[in-house]
Amino acid sequence: MNPRLEIFSQGDEVVTGQIVDTNAAWLAQQAVSFGFHVTRHTAVGDRIEDLIALLGEIAQRADCCLCTGGLGPTTDDLTAEAVATAFNLPLVLDTEALAHIEQFFAHRQRVMPASNGKQALFPQGAQRLDNEYGTAPGFAVQVGRCWFVFMPGVPSEMKPMYTHKVQPQLSERFALQPSNLTTLRTLGIGESAIQELMNSIAIPDDVQLGYRAELGEVQTKLLFPFAYAESEKAALVNQIAAQLGDTVFAIDHTRETSSDLISVLNDLMTQGDYTLAVIETVSCGLLTSLCIGADWLVEARYQPALISTEQTDLQALALELQTTSGATFALVQLYIGDKNGVMILRNGLLTPYGFYATTQTIAGALKRKQHQSALSALDLLRRYLQQKL
Amino acid sequence: MNPRLEIFSQGDEVVTGQIVDTNAAWLAQQAVSFGFHVTRHTAVGDRIEDLIALLGEIAQRADCCLCTGGLGPTTDDLTAEAVATAFNLPLVLDTEALAHIEQFFAHRQRVMPASNGKQALFPQGAQRLDNEYGTAPGFAVQVGRCWFVFMPGVPSEMKPMYTHKVQPQLSERFALQPSNLTTLRTLGIGESAIQELMNSIAIPDDVQLGYRAELGEVQTKLLFPFAYAESEKAALVNQIAAQLGDTVFAIDHTRETSSDLISVLNDLMTQGDYTLAVIETVSCGLLTSLCIGADWLVEARYQPALISTEQTDLQALALELQTTSGATFALVQLYIGDKNGVMILRNGLLTPYGFYATTQTIAGALKRKQHQSALSALDLLRRYLQQKL
Repeated sequence: MNPRLEIFSQGDEVVTGQIVDTNAAWLAQQAVSFGFHVTRHTAVGDRIEDLIALLGEIAQRADCCLCTGGLGPTTDDLTAEAVATAFNLPLVLDTEALAHIEQFFAHRQRVMPASNGKQALFPQGAQRLDNEYGTAPGFAVQVGRCWFVFMPGVPSEMKPMYTHKVQPQLSERFALQPSNLTTLRTLGIGESAIQELMNSIAIPDDVQLGYRAELGEVQTKLLFPFAYAESEKAALVNQIAAQLGDTVFAIDHTRETSSDLISVLNDLMTQGDYTLAVIETVSCGLLTSLCIGADWLVEARYQPALISTEQTDLQALALELQTTSGATFALVQLYIGDKNGVMILRNGLLTPYGFYATTQTIAGALKRKQHQSALSALDLLRRYLQQKL
Repeated sequence: MNPRLEIFSQGDEVVTGQIVDTNAAWLAQQAVSFGFHVTRHTAVGDRIEDLIALLGEIAQRADCCLCTGGLGPTTDDLTAEAVATAFNLPLVLDTEALAHIEQFFAHRQRVMPASNGKQALFPQGAQRLDNEYGTAPGFAVQVGRCWFVFMPGVPSEMKPMYTHKVQPQLSERFALQPSNLTTLRTLGIGESAIQELMNSIAIPDDVQLGYRAELGEVQTKLLFPFAYAESEKAALVNQIAAQLGDTVFAIDHTRETSSDLISVLNDLMTQGDYTLAVIETVSCGLLTSLCIGADWLVEARYQPALISTEQTDLQALALELQTTSGATFALVQLYIGDKNGVMILRNGLLTPYGFYATTQTIAGALKRKQHQSALSALDLLRRYLQQKL
């Protein structure tokens, strides 16, 4: 039997519904993939009695508990105090943690407010988990059968803390038999079209098939049981990849890899030492924004006034962009139609070896169109680079 | 004391993190604004023992429980059975419900699978809640102090059921006294700096103070009890707004309003019939992307090669942008430093009445810098438009 794990989210903003608790789902996915049996999620607000009661319950039921929230500097951040009271572990000042927090402020040339000092107090016997992206350190403590891990509620601080400080300890502390996940990532095809293509493929009973649709992208997921034969796994994955064809832009062979379109493009552009210039319309800066950190994007223009007709010369626009920017590739996106209705999207890609264009229809809310148009333009570049045009 | 309400979500897909539980947040918001004290959310998977245990716990603690999921026709839909067992209320066939379900299939010219018959079985004494958008009826049952409401997990079925069948019963069944939330939204100041400023302000004991930090933005939240005197409320909010000064970009006086920076800018730009042109560097398209749908953004350029020195003439760049774009305002962002280290951000805003510039330090991960730099540039425009420069 896999060890039992619970997720615990603290905060009035969660319990009153001001924010959707995405941390719980993210941590649960991580834990399941590592081989835990996730049995329960609980969220309570910033009331010390509720926190103490819940900690006591979980200590009886679970082998591991992943908690988020309540580690900030303010008076409604009560986690350390609740742990201290619930388990009779007095708070102790960690001078190293205090130095880290002071450093965080010094680094930003700000004075540390006195209230941040509280973030260096931990229940006796706890292991400190440093926070690379914020002031709130986390901590972990074993209470009876249960290993409690407390992390910040801000996802951009919690996720790296989990990945770098918590996950490496799990395999030492627990006897886990993780299942194995393979994800085929596709663009330019819908979930039901994929399901139809998959009908002709026999999926073994012990392999679990699932789908997940995000904006524009569909993921086909295969969950293989622990110690499934590698050769059989490879044969099945290859058969499915062949069936889905050039819509597949990446295959993630483990849960830990996550080859999104940008990381795939990053590899291809960097290997070829290529550069890109872009003109955006419908995607309104999102295409550029997704390329954050990519040195190969040398210029981008958002020119909302550039509405095209069927006749507008995409290729001439791309050529002008390529010439003025000096980039290897010029990617231009125009549209026909009203932004609140159904739109026809025209992507044009000028490369040193020719010009490629696509036309497609997009509909739905403005943000959905923004996202889909950004991905569809970048996917044209991806297909060119993967020699699928 | 407001009645205590808990949210209960059932389903393996929630507890394993395959889906994010948006139902819980939505229901919690509804309940809070109606005057409930929401004390806990819990999610468990499709295991009958877990369901029975949780139902028993909640019946002891809460006055009302809103549950979603587990009402479908398949073998992993166990809610009615769990309620029957937990509270010793044998399942009874509701012939009217069965007729509804049969009708649902007849209407779509499909044969009703035998398994759907199970959806017409309810615990003795339960009140049926018809489902206008699917086959699964919900039900409600009073057990001791707690009124349990069971709804489908599919949001498009659950929300109308809550709104039309559940909410109208709440004011009859409970003496509700909704509290009132005011949110002061600030940019350019940290959570702990706000807390220091707030130290000098006396918050009455019956007013609950809380904070929430998002990327760049901090929200100071005041929860006023039912029937709190409007004049006292206004006085306190004004005192805090004065203390926080020009960092306050909006004040939301109810839970239903949500004035983010872009909506505030939208109002100001549209009222003045102004237009904006932008040069982005660190924010890499995100500033533009956040303005999706805003007709006042007439041009944006991402020019990563534009690294500034202290001497680079922000004003000259802004003037050139204003001239070529014809926009009312030209907003230019440059930076000094390496993108992986601490950066100095320089924002320049050229208006018809003068040039304004700010300098600040940013640090952290690339995406964090991207977000903070986009907000800080837009916030310079906001301060100008609100006449706070």
